Amino acid sequence: MDYKKLSSEILSKGSFLCIGLDTDLTKIPKHLLDTEDPQFEFNKQIVDATHHFAIAYKPNLAFYEAEGVKGWQSLEKTVCYIKDNYPDLFVIADAKRGDIGNTSKLYAKAFFEKLPFDAITVAPYMGEDSITPFLEYPNKWVILLALTSNKGSLDFQHNANADTDQSLHQEVLTKSKKWSTKQNMMYVVGATQADKLREIREIVPDNFLLVPGVGAQGGSLEEVAKYGMNDSCGLIVNSSREIIYASNDKNFAGAAAKIAFEKYQQPMRQYLQAYGLLWCNFFLPSISSVIYGRFFLYSPSKI
Amino acid sequence: MDYKKLSSEILSKGSFLCIGLDTDLTKIPKHLLDTEDPQFEFNKQIVDATHHFAIAYKPNLAFYEAEGVKGWQSLEKTVCYIKDNYPDLFVIADAKRGDIGNTSKLYAKAFFEKLPFDAITVAPYMGEDSITPFLEYPNKWVILLALTSNKGSLDFQHNANADTDQSLHQEVLTKSKKWSTKQNMMYVVGATQADKLREIREIVPDNFLLVPGVGAQGGSLEEVAKYGMNDSCGLIVNSSREIIYASNDKNFAGAAAKIAFEKYQQPMRQYLQAYGLLWCNFFLPSISSVIYGRFFLYSPSKI
Repeated sequence: MDYKKLSSEILSKGSFLCIGLDTDLTKIPKHLLDTEDPQFEFNKQIVDATHHFAIAYKPNLAFYEAEGVKGWQSLEKTVCYIKDNYPDLFVIADAKRGDIGNTSKLYAKAFFEKLPFDAITVAPYMGEDSITPFLEYPNKWVILLALTSNKGSLDFQHNANADTDQSLHQEVLTKSKKWSTKQNMMYVVGATQADKLREIREIVPDNFLLVPGVGAQGGSLEEVAKYGMNDSCGLIVNSSREIIYASNDKNFAGAAAKIAFEKYQQPMRQYLQAYGLLWCNFFLPSISSVIYGRFFLYSPSKI
Repeated sequence: MDYKKLSSEILSKGSFLCIGLDTDLTKIPKHLLDTEDPQFEFNKQIVDATHHFAIAYKPNLAFYEAEGVKGWQSLEKTVCYIKDNYPDLFVIADAKRGDIGNTSKLYAKAFFEKLPFDAITVAPYMGEDSITPFLEYPNKWVILLALTSNKGSLDFQHNANADTDQSLHQEVLTKSKKWSTKQNMMYVVGATQADKLREIREIVPDNFLLVPGVGAQGGSLEEVAKYGMNDSCGLIVNSSREIIYASNDKNFAGAAAKIAFEKYQQPMRQYLQAYGLLWCNFFLPSISSVIYGRFFLYSPSKI
């Protein structure tokens, strides 16, 4: 998927939401454990119920690797199911890979050829040759860790470089910009550090940013939109646990859709309108509201 | 496996060699492609032929992930085969993982519970909480990237911190030492940067170092031993391609053993003797020589 298509999907859905498929067998509804492939079954129902409100899905590899070979089968089924049924969705392998050049080439093969992911998260510590093999695939993306949402981001990512006066995460942005284009490179910037978004936008005004840490981790969607949005939106905001584990009864997917719609897609549409990227349509009922009605108002169980 | 046991394995074999199982289906002998599981079959024969000369094996995950679900099956079979048949071998998942704390916990589960690896390589960019979940497993190890062997290591790992006067890789060593002990933490230091080993040993005198980059990448074993060895040896030197792809005929495993013995284990034994960690036995034929004879002198094909 290219930059233009991704921006147009965001405007067409009025959403820049990514849903993290951190599918943990100890947290999904118990009744799914009797199915043949509980991780896949959970993901399928979540995607079917929420895809009107999200433009991207992000399986985190750890949750699948923790189940061994069976987990990889569930991962493969999940990404193929999404791309077969909803080809306009953007699917991210949250894998945080990175190795010497020859080896990164094989990771690129794993995620872009063997599996149909659109993008992969990559760690920058090993530098240019660990990243560039992923950039050779047309319409595929690297999402490079810049400033992460966790406490450990304070350990090294803010280090001030004595020679350049840039902090490490700023230098990651500055250097990697030279190896890539806005068409194949995005950056991870945690919502918990939204105050840094303004400086980051000075270095990478055009690139998409993948922003985790809204929701369970405490980041503010409003601040992310305020400091991070550019004239193509340029944001993909991720929420995982808050959406996918909204309920653990039989209508868990409906409950997830309710959160995705009310807490994310609705405000996101408003931010896109407020920043002049979408027209306001006061007189026409929005498509989202119609879909919302279908999912919740006529839902057989109370949410 | 604990520190003492690992040191004693090194002295008992007169070797600190790790063989990297970077098993690429385009490079292994063609006749293996007709077997049910070529990656596993190749690994099994390599391990059976070389285990007298090596104390560790290191499958790099990229080579298995590139084959999808089948690759994970081959990986699982490989690590289980090694631990079942040679429980004294140290097996490293070269995975370069690292994520927010909750997610790193699942990677630890994947490699230390679901699979019986002794150690995993971890990337430091995301800081303390991305690393500590791996440290909670007794007798399991984190091998943290400090100074890698590739060209891209020059991009960020030598950055001078304006506040501490340490370069980034030195700071990774200094900070991570506080989160761990020499019993559960090793560091990756590339042999191509052996001149930095002296400074690194000042920061982490007791920790084991995993040293890639000898052989195909051009690092010098002699320099690594000179600047890196401590009084428990403290080194695990990896070679992958040079050993495992020594030949691609039917006796590829014998050819691998020949390189492992002649180019690595023999000099390693001499370094261990030269640095006073092993006695020299001039009068007794060494066990290695007997094994060497078995593998090569009576080998049916010329190597």
